[in-house]
Amino acid sequence: MSEFDLIARIQSRASGHAASGVVVGIGDDAAVIAPAAGHEIVATTDSLVPGRHFTDAWSAEEIGCLAARANLSDVAAMGARPRWALLTLTLPGVDEAWLDGFLDGFLAALEQAGTALVGGNLARGPLNIGVQLLGEVPAGQAVLRSGGQAGDRIVVTGTPGDAAAALLLGEKAPAELLNRLRCPPARVRAGLALRDHAHAMIDISDGFAADLNHLLSDDLGAEIDLDCLPASPALKKSVPAPEKRWPLQLQGGSDYELLALVPPQTDIDRLQEKAGVALTATGTVVDGGGIRFQSSQHALPPLIVQGWDHFKND
Amino acid sequence: MSEFDLIARIQSRASGHAASGVVVGIGDDAAVIAPAAGHEIVATTDSLVPGRHFTDAWSAEEIGCLAARANLSDVAAMGARPRWALLTLTLPGVDEAWLDGFLDGFLAALEQAGTALVGGNLARGPLNIGVQLLGEVPAGQAVLRSGGQAGDRIVVTGTPGDAAAALLLGEKAPAELLNRLRCPPARVRAGLALRDHAHAMIDISDGFAADLNHLLSDDLGAEIDLDCLPASPALKKSVPAPEKRWPLQLQGGSDYELLALVPPQTDIDRLQEKAGVALTATGTVVDGGGIRFQSSQHALPPLIVQGWDHFKND
Repeated sequence: MSEFDLIARIQSRASGHAASGVVVGIGDDAAVIAPAAGHEIVATTDSLVPGRHFTDAWSAEEIGCLAARANLSDVAAMGARPRWALLTLTLPGVDEAWLDGFLDGFLAALEQAGTALVGGNLARGPLNIGVQLLGEVPAGQAVLRSGGQAGDRIVVTGTPGDAAAALLLGEKAPAELLNRLRCPPARVRAGLALRDHAHAMIDISDGFAADLNHLLSDDLGAEIDLDCLPASPALKKSVPAPEKRWPLQLQGGSDYELLALVPPQTDIDRLQEKAGVALTATGTVVDGGGIRFQSSQHALPPLIVQGWDHFKND
Repeated sequence: MSEFDLIARIQSRASGHAASGVVVGIGDDAAVIAPAAGHEIVATTDSLVPGRHFTDAWSAEEIGCLAARANLSDVAAMGARPRWALLTLTLPGVDEAWLDGFLDGFLAALEQAGTALVGGNLARGPLNIGVQLLGEVPAGQAVLRSGGQAGDRIVVTGTPGDAAAALLLGEKAPAELLNRLRCPPARVRAGLALRDHAHAMIDISDGFAADLNHLLSDDLGAEIDLDCLPASPALKKSVPAPEKRWPLQLQGGSDYELLALVPPQTDIDRLQEKAGVALTATGTVVDGGGIRFQSSQHALPPLIVQGWDHFKND
């Protein structure tokens, strides 16, 4: 199989995912896409490298899923709608079974998010998976990391910490947790729902605390009520003690949940219906730097008491 | 130096190249760009891997130049104006001097083409350089590979063959030829000039003959007058015999010249002024498949007589 054969194989599978706005797809010098009038384009890229982002224990399908979702999540965090993807594959050799598995996971995740694969590049070399994602957002409405205000409520989607627990427990981790690490959600619908309300938004890739810090300017801090921090049933079962669970939830990355700062009057229950996933208020933005954690039910572990300074410098 | 430090270093250098249409640049979850009204977006990606696309003999600046130009060339081949770039760097370690040299070459090539670096990604692993380029073209005016017609003249920009000669001669090659391989032109201005005339266009990355075949449908062929094939002074000096030079010019890739099919009545001399580079008519599109080469001045080498069949299957 030559490079041309591999491209033809990818093209034949991608063409089933034709989407509106694709003028020219795979097969020319570049793709041509037609953004909707009055919209801006959101553009992101993320790459996966063996040993850093996945191991030999991962299936090709899981790698494909993560490659798509890590990028979809960045577009979701801007409040944008993902539309078009490019794939830059560097492969050590021709392995049709691996490629087919990868495409199974990759294209399914794109399709679920209404995103078409429109182009890419193949090269020979150590395995490296680069994805570029383009999304659309009405002009001026992208939600940035900046923009938070004192008094804003700190809202998180879903249940952070599952991916960190899967990393900690390794192959012994229950399937629900492993799946959250290897094929995480991309909160596209939630990002769109939050767009009309959020002052600021980010996706949790470095960890709840580190990414919350990215939302806080030097003169803004946060108070987090750990009793409100949502945890999945699988995480609670695997790590029952809150003082052991919280560090995973706050410091663990790769969750791809969204973290948003919304005005205090926001009707979060109503927003949750539009988001299609749980939205939980976990704290408040305050004047003055740093993050303070509190719990009325449990003693805080030392790591968290000393926490915000470490996170601030992360 | 951490990943964050490296990103800050890239950001500080990229910010000098601010361009119109950048709503959000480096530093958020994704870049936000504002295409001009009535335009479509052209998107391409190309990656460079050591040993395949460059060797240890190359400077970091040359690698940066090639990374930018290989992508700019794809946008130029659509008749589009390059505007915004993303950079996906996988680096084996922190080497500030290398990164600075790379950025020297990369950012200079982008700036010269009016293109802003708006985002990207850093990962740790075997060296891999991925670039994504976004351009703009008035809606419906992108020039595709398809669209050629019998009677069209086959126009090439500049002087193909220099990069192939540099590869053949290796480190002994004269500087002019080496430079064409390592920091090739991107014919952006020529692509824009050709857009209003060309039925079809491609950039020469696989070789003149192979890429010409990409412009010809099954029922179209071409007649090439080798006496018209333009060669640079450096190439003529290094490889004086036409029968040795032609195979390099026809089969060698990495030239990044543009190959366009234009209607017979096109005023090529006038178009050349707008293109800012020599445009040479080298032959004609004909009915019936295959490429025929001819010369009234020299005997054809066997490789070229047998040529088109090989190229057709390339």
